[in-house]
Amino acid sequence: MMVFAAAAMGRLMEPHNPNWKARCEAGFLAQEVMGTLGVTIADIAPGRVVLEMPFNAAFTQHHGFLHAGTVTTALDSACGFAAFTLMPQDREVLTVEFKSNFLSPAKGAAFRFEGEVVKSGRTLSVTRGTAFADGVAISTMQATMMAVTTP
Amino acid sequence: MMVFAAAAMGRLMEPHNPNWKARCEAGFLAQEVMGTLGVTIADIAPGRVVLEMPFNAAFTQHHGFLHAGTVTTALDSACGFAAFTLMPQDREVLTVEFKSNFLSPAKGAAFRFEGEVVKSGRTLSVTRGTAFADGVAISTMQATMMAVTTP
Amino acid sequence: MMVFAAAAMGRLMEPHNPNWKARCEAGFLAQEVMGTLGVTIADIAPGRVVLEMPFNAAFTQHHGFLHAGTVTTALDSACGFAAFTLMPQDREVLTVEFKSNFLSPAKGAAFRFEGEVVKSGRTLSVTRGTAFADGVAISTMQATMMAVTTP
Amino acid sequence: MMVFAAAAMGRLMEPHNPNWKARCEAGFLAQEVMGTLGVTIADIAPGRVVLEMPFNAAFTQHHGFLHAGTVTTALDSACGFAAFTLMPQDREVLTVEFKSNFLSPAKGAAFRFEGEVVKSGRTLSVTRGTAFADGVAISTMQATMMAVTTP
Repeated sequence: MMVFAAAAMGRLMEPHNPNWKARCEAGFLAQEVMGTLGVTIADIAPGRVVLEMPFNAAFTQHHGFLHAGTVTTALDSACGFAAFTLMPQDREVLTVEFKSNFLSPAKGAAFRFEGEVVKSGRTLSVTRGTAFADGVAISTMQATMMAVTTP
Repeated sequence: MMVFAAAAMGRLMEPHNPNWKARCEAGFLAQEVMGTLGVTIADIAPGRVVLEMPFNAAFTQHHGFLHAGTVTTALDSACGFAAFTLMPQDREVLTVEFKSNFLSPAKGAAFRFEGEVVKSGRTLSVTRGTAFADGVAISTMQATMMAVTTP
Repeated sequence: MMVFAAAAMGRLMEPHNPNWKARCEAGFLAQEVMGTLGVTIADIAPGRVVLEMPFNAAFTQHHGFLHAGTVTTALDSACGFAAFTLMPQDREVLTVEFKSNFLSPAKGAAFRFEGEVVKSGRTLSVTRGTAFADGVAISTMQATMMAVTTP
Repeated sequence: MMVFAAAAMGRLMEPHNPNWKARCEAGFLAQEVMGTLGVTIADIAPGRVVLEMPFNAAFTQHHGFLHAGTVTTALDSACGFAAFTLMPQDREVLTVEFKSNFLSPAKGAAFRFEGEVVKSGRTLSVTRGTAFADGVAISTMQATMMAVTTP
């Protein structure tokens, strides 16, 4: 089990919108790529989102493992929605940048993507994510998200 | 037009395998996710690979633009195959890590992904990539690739 | 010679402050660490700053080469001041994040640090930097800078 | 308190050299920049190194806070030596790349730098670091280290 950095650093994560959960779930459904990949929400809490995805050969690289970019797509959404849980009603988030290390082959039947907020600022949020294949950590991400006014 | 860093730094990129081009093309076709996304090779040279992809709503985020992870999937392959063009016959490459900044919305009809080798070492290669949407730079990647013995 | 990405992408970099150069030079002198390290400005233009530093054993790692962090300190300032050249009078920049790859040992007598703006946005600027030791590229950075109101 | 990722992921970190601690301490003393900055070892364990540094105006930026590069220099050494604790007798480590986010101003009297190994591979180690100023998290690093044969 991953221990979440924010909690570990002793800070509480408080939503700024009573509607945060429904808003995140709706935002997630609006990302068409999540449906295409078969990614679903496994858990959602203020400052933390966990996604899941079954193996799908359509998204693999040349050894038949999930492509690093596929893993990153789900991890970016886990981190982005983790930041989104803490946004006020008139704000949404964009990915400014991310960096991922790949720890082990993305080989398995069940994938899990944990995203959490390390620091939620007024404009920028720093997040961290870890991807797992059948329980083994395969990738770790550090990402910056930016709050923008909802169009 | 992007000017390639390696050429700009005055170093020549020499393949170490007479068969480098056919090997890259075969490796690319073996990445099932490339076919799923509709990514194809537009140009390939020693130390440099350019990929293309038409817009596809199935891989979008909540505003209908390509998801950052989709862009990253193609950019990672552009960078990885750029490194692969310089590998000897018994080596292939794995992505160690990458970092991407997102410059503009991934909004457009035609996407282009340029990957190039900045430094090709015996074990590690440093690469750089830029993604374009209808000619506008939308993302820039810095990635580390590792040479591993072909299984 | 490194060819600068922004120019290569066909965009002009225009200062938004007639006083940009004097302001950058003053800001640079105010960074006490630059004097401590012996870093000086070699060249400054809108969207581009080049710094220089002679070898100094006081800032080395265990092989007697400049420490990766020393190289990064100068490269971060090169990138930050490159972004600062394009700021209006009431704005300055903070480093949001950076990522550096190390290409070759930081071994040499004369070090050079080139920073340039890839994209200058209203809030965020994306920059790129390359460090050289006696003309050899030793490190490449991709960094995000944030415009903040001058206190 | 930061909870360490490796322990959190349920893996034990075992040294491969009975002499690991003395070797790390000697390696640390050989990094001249550590002495120049006033950085010392606060704690050292297999897979984990904590460094400390008092504030020093000589290494500050224009607001009088520690320069991002100074923080990164100490954090890189914390991560590098964390990886080094797990190396066999004939190996040492080089920094391949790192990425740091800056969370809060590096403002304080006492700085602390925690580095830990996320994954220790035969060739590459992935590490993570967090810097604190008077107990407040100011920067978080994700870094790749490479094992090389000791010259």
